[in-house]
Amino acid sequence: MTQNIYDDEAFFAAYGRLPRSVEGLAGAPEWPALRALLPDLAGRRVLDLGCGYGWFCRWAREHGAASVLGLDVSARMLARARAETEDAAIVYAEADLEHFAALAEPVDVAFSSLAFHYVVNLAGLFAGLHASLAPGGALVFSVEHPIYTAPRNPGWSDAADGQAAWPVDSYLDEGPRTTNWLVDGVIKQHRTIGRHVSLLVRSGFAVTHLDEWGPSAEQIAAHPDWANERQRPSFLIMGCERR
Amino acid sequence: MTQNIYDDEAFFAAYGRLPRSVEGLAGAPEWPALRALLPDLAGRRVLDLGCGYGWFCRWAREHGAASVLGLDVSARMLARARAETEDAAIVYAEADLEHFAALAEPVDVAFSSLAFHYVVNLAGLFAGLHASLAPGGALVFSVEHPIYTAPRNPGWSDAADGQAAWPVDSYLDEGPRTTNWLVDGVIKQHRTIGRHVSLLVRSGFAVTHLDEWGPSAEQIAAHPDWANERQRPSFLIMGCERR
Repeated sequence: MTQNIYDDEAFFAAYGRLPRSVEGLAGAPEWPALRALLPDLAGRRVLDLGCGYGWFCRWAREHGAASVLGLDVSARMLARARAETEDAAIVYAEADLEHFAALAEPVDVAFSSLAFHYVVNLAGLFAGLHASLAPGGALVFSVEHPIYTAPRNPGWSDAADGQAAWPVDSYLDEGPRTTNWLVDGVIKQHRTIGRHVSLLVRSGFAVTHLDEWGPSAEQIAAHPDWANERQRPSFLIMGCERR
Repeated sequence: MTQNIYDDEAFFAAYGRLPRSVEGLAGAPEWPALRALLPDLAGRRVLDLGCGYGWFCRWAREHGAASVLGLDVSARMLARARAETEDAAIVYAEADLEHFAALAEPVDVAFSSLAFHYVVNLAGLFAGLHASLAPGGALVFSVEHPIYTAPRNPGWSDAADGQAAWPVDSYLDEGPRTTNWLVDGVIKQHRTIGRHVSLLVRSGFAVTHLDEWGPSAEQIAAHPDWANERQRPSFLIMGCERR
């Protein structure tokens, strides 16, 4: 199964202190870009893969979704999601995205924020999503950008002229990357953008949007310490249509 | 109009000594990846944007194309292409891709190798290509990869462990980049992958292939000095269907 770092006690505690954990969607700077790719949710059946505390599930219901299914591999996450949700139309279930089987009832919109880079068998997951989505349905997701995940020893460097730069190596060598994020030994899967497109197209999705996210000028004005994030994209955000 | 560096005498002389100029398609390491995206050319009307010496135009005819139109901004290039071509079904014409108008006669396949990164008005070019391609037609092209074009001062760095790395900066700041390639002051347009996808989709193309090219293990075995090219992709190769 997927490494379930979210049930590690130290990780869970550290994760709970991140802005996106404390403030929810508003604490995730890339949320406006993800939101922009979502279709109107009114009356739609929505799936959230890697739902965490359930922030997006509740937001979807507030924006008219008929039903929401939130899946996560972490029992700790789901316990907190359930504790913070009072809505019979939101169902949470434990699921390992590494072995995702087609849903019995189709959905209209599948959403995932920063979960797919933990999944080794992404081809299997996309096949399962294609089988779970109604024709014309939407898949909207974010992952860490491959420029961000590629380096063996990721980090900023200072060029001679003081320009911060992100040294890229091993970009074309896909596979696991072990990083120390919140705790030591978190394993993420590095995949090129080309790989994402190829897996999606072969699974029967049309790629309608591809956003290499960085903060806007307004966001940098509000958070000057984010300026370096324009030197290289942090997130890859994709919008797809199920054919 | 587009900076026409190819009619610069020093550039033209240096360009003529590159392996891809001397050996043609076989001297371009990314050619097998481009070729893999081409449909069967038998009986098809083919367009080559930035045809240079006409290598691809002649190859297309050898592979059954009914007719080939080769466009280039450089009179020097076209003179040599004409001198090396004896085939009434290949027509060469001078054209500035910056102001590309729809062709009077539609084509089935549009091809371009390493020309679009010189074009400022890529949206206009894609619109013209959409209008020039028959429905279901193919657009296959390569450009320099944005990881390659992004840095203000491109080049390799050595990390502490001796791993060659390509420091990336300014990735999200699109626009002109002036580099010294063969001669000083060559201007290329840096665009993200997301921008290419967005312009294509808005112009009515479906993105069917996206390849971030680097040399294969076999190519590195034959050319050990290419090994660093796997640290970051050199070329972005895209295949699209005209909807």
